[in-house]
Amino acid sequence: MTESGSNNDRSHLAGATSVILDAITFDANGLVPAIAQQADSGEVLMLAWMNRDAVEETLKTGFAHYYSRSRKALWRKGETSGQTQSVRDIRIDCDGDTVLLLVDQKGVACHTGRHNCFFRAPRDGSLRDVHPVVTSPDALYGKSGDGG
Amino acid sequence: MTESGSNNDRSHLAGATSVILDAITFDANGLVPAIAQQADSGEVLMLAWMNRDAVEETLKTGFAHYYSRSRKALWRKGETSGQTQSVRDIRIDCDGDTVLLLVDQKGVACHTGRHNCFFRAPRDGSLRDVHPVVTSPDALYGKSGDGG
Repeated sequence: MTESGSNNDRSHLAGATSVILDAITFDANGLVPAIAQQADSGEVLMLAWMNRDAVEETLKTGFAHYYSRSRKALWRKGETSGQTQSVRDIRIDCDGDTVLLLVDQKGVACHTGRHNCFFRAPRDGSLRDVHPVVTSPDALYGKSGDGG
Repeated sequence: MTESGSNNDRSHLAGATSVILDAITFDANGLVPAIAQQADSGEVLMLAWMNRDAVEETLKTGFAHYYSRSRKALWRKGETSGQTQSVRDIRIDCDGDTVLLLVDQKGVACHTGRHNCFFRAPRDGSLRDVHPVVTSPDALYGKSGDGG
């Protein structure tokens, strides 16, 4: 459904770091919102934020890196939980202020143990969880539960 | 692929305005990023921003409303171009700081006349347009080209 580069060749990513950085309009905090979408199914997994270092590391390594606003640090998705995102392609939107990452999610994207973070929906006047927990957060993070 | 409410019944939206507003963490500017995804295909169409009024109008009318940061005004998507978004469902993410709208896009989402805004991808060391212009911007906006 969403096109992407060939599965194993990421040379189109690593070789385009400077043109991609030039195309992105980072906000006043040096950040840009990044949507992670499962490349084959189109499932929207999560939204996180990237700074320049996160973009560079993502393109260099082929694995999604973000900037943690709470920890104020570069964050390699899955560094604690093992739930990494292998990046197939990257898209920049029309005005350069949003990034779309087409990824292969290993395991689950959400720190709650759900496959994606968008699991709360209005039903009968309340918010209900419409996606199940498929992996215990304890199994992902031990008892500390820091996310990532 | 993405589940949603029945096509014509939006009572689950209008009746949940207060619980949805309570679940959203608006940023220091009173805004939250909102991803619009085509409900049936899973295509990520665009990212825009919502304030409280935009959320309320979206749930009340069933059509996506955003807050235009450039115009500093509530923006009914398609108010100029006619390219409206009928909202099938709304999702709030795990920490309440992103909204996902599952929509039926009328026509094209992007002011450039492409079906979605994420059309720039790295190819051979440059950014290339990977989605075609399907509707002329002049046809959408006349000669003024204001977006929306």
